[in-house]
Amino acid sequence: MASNAIIQLPIVKITGGKSADIVDALAIEEPLEIRLEYGPAIDRQVRNISVTMRTPGNDAELATGFLFTEGITRDLKDIAGIGHCFIACAENKENVMQVSLDENTIPHLQNTERNFYTTSSCGVCGKGSINAIRTVSTFTQHEDSNTVNTEILYQLPDILRQHQRVFEDTGGLHASALFSSLGELLLVREDVGRHNALDKLIGAAINNNLLPLNNNVLMLSGRASFELVQKAAMAGINIIAAVGAPSSLAVQLAEEFNITLVGFLRGLRFNIYTAGHRILIPGYEITY
Amino acid sequence: MASNAIIQLPIVKITGGKSADIVDALAIEEPLEIRLEYGPAIDRQVRNISVTMRTPGNDAELATGFLFTEGITRDLKDIAGIGHCFIACAENKENVMQVSLDENTIPHLQNTERNFYTTSSCGVCGKGSINAIRTVSTFTQHEDSNTVNTEILYQLPDILRQHQRVFEDTGGLHASALFSSLGELLLVREDVGRHNALDKLIGAAINNNLLPLNNNVLMLSGRASFELVQKAAMAGINIIAAVGAPSSLAVQLAEEFNITLVGFLRGLRFNIYTAGHRILIPGYEITY
Repeated sequence: MASNAIIQLPIVKITGGKSADIVDALAIEEPLEIRLEYGPAIDRQVRNISVTMRTPGNDAELATGFLFTEGITRDLKDIAGIGHCFIACAENKENVMQVSLDENTIPHLQNTERNFYTTSSCGVCGKGSINAIRTVSTFTQHEDSNTVNTEILYQLPDILRQHQRVFEDTGGLHASALFSSLGELLLVREDVGRHNALDKLIGAAINNNLLPLNNNVLMLSGRASFELVQKAAMAGINIIAAVGAPSSLAVQLAEEFNITLVGFLRGLRFNIYTAGHRILIPGYEITY
Repeated sequence: MASNAIIQLPIVKITGGKSADIVDALAIEEPLEIRLEYGPAIDRQVRNISVTMRTPGNDAELATGFLFTEGITRDLKDIAGIGHCFIACAENKENVMQVSLDENTIPHLQNTERNFYTTSSCGVCGKGSINAIRTVSTFTQHEDSNTVNTEILYQLPDILRQHQRVFEDTGGLHASALFSSLGELLLVREDVGRHNALDKLIGAAINNNLLPLNNNVLMLSGRASFELVQKAAMAGINIIAAVGAPSSLAVQLAEEFNITLVGFLRGLRFNIYTAGHRILIPGYEITY
């Protein structure tokens, strides 16, 4: 991944009033169009679904994850083919991913307008946004036995950091990582956009037939927004740990979906915002 | 601003294996629809332009800044009125901003699709994105005499941090600040979305008739993405300093528009990515 995710540029470094010409590594940001081909063989249609600014690499995972977490497709079997379209300009040939659906699959394209309210009564508010997620979520949160130990949680940020290869070089990328509940790192993905990093991760998990991810822990390198909790919910994730702060709506959505949301996971500290019953503290009994 | 930007929630804080019930402050995230009313008096139209997840507060500035930085409106005089629409549900009445344009103003709505490519040759690549910005930018970069001293730059992150009131409480917000080139703080705005923080800042600057901002320094609390440099360019900003890393496309756009882009501004250090002639190092002559 790192090879096409980084560019080297000459820059001037200033340190305490001294200037030096050096070469610096930057994270690449380029637009990616996700294009959907669908419909019966006699009447195939092609439609632009999204343009996102992303770091090149794992583009097929990004497209797969995006279509799934936005509720447009529901199953890997819906996807008959996926690949780069070489129609962009000579400089950047790989900025269009075309996803061809099985001809019997009807994409749920109305979900791409999920963030636009459809009724005037309750669309444009946190509650309306949460209701909209509920209608498209594939994995309803059943009873589960997933738990994670505090001692495991403490280790996750360091493990994530060690595997953020592009961040190490550029300081410029978000990361999402999937762990087993025993702290084993399964997948890491990086991107300039935090939503893209998570879409890539979920796309990779879909390709590996890992869904629903209800025995795992999702680790986020930054803050936890509504959008990230929404994408996690779509993949059946029930434990999310973030290095940064959650937003109010991220907490409301996690509460609604019975997802354990941990924030400010740093050193030997963290905050539990919702569903704390999945966090085990050794020698300590918490009742919620 | 802080009053409706923060919510207090009961959480569980874990510190070295000990658990404590506390009340924590979270940054509020709620959707905001920006709606445009336009056209001649006999045929007024209303159209949904955007839904963004934002922190409530300064919503009129956000709408004004968004319309301007996206190239949909070009002048404050185009806007005849702006206000919240109380049609959302009872829980969140203030999540729709309706902007009424002067009846002689034609909004440049095609610009809302700027990120969607219009030709198959060169739309979906960094170069295409930069070309699209050039066509809608109001302030072309003329010769300017704006400069900033390294000693001034070193102070900006601390001043910004002292004025990030919501971040102080929640750890969860991005900030944009406008400084004079002598380091005087003019405006600060915060939001869960970094693009919203900048739109609010530029909206406030428009309301105060400060544009073009070609004698100022824009300070960003995090990373510098393409989108942020684009919005800055629309407001005529020619010096951007970020605490975090820039992306490759942010640097390309800054280079193309002759904008000075500084990254990793921390302590007595920073990197100059583009147009270093505006940075003055005392007792030191740099030639570019």
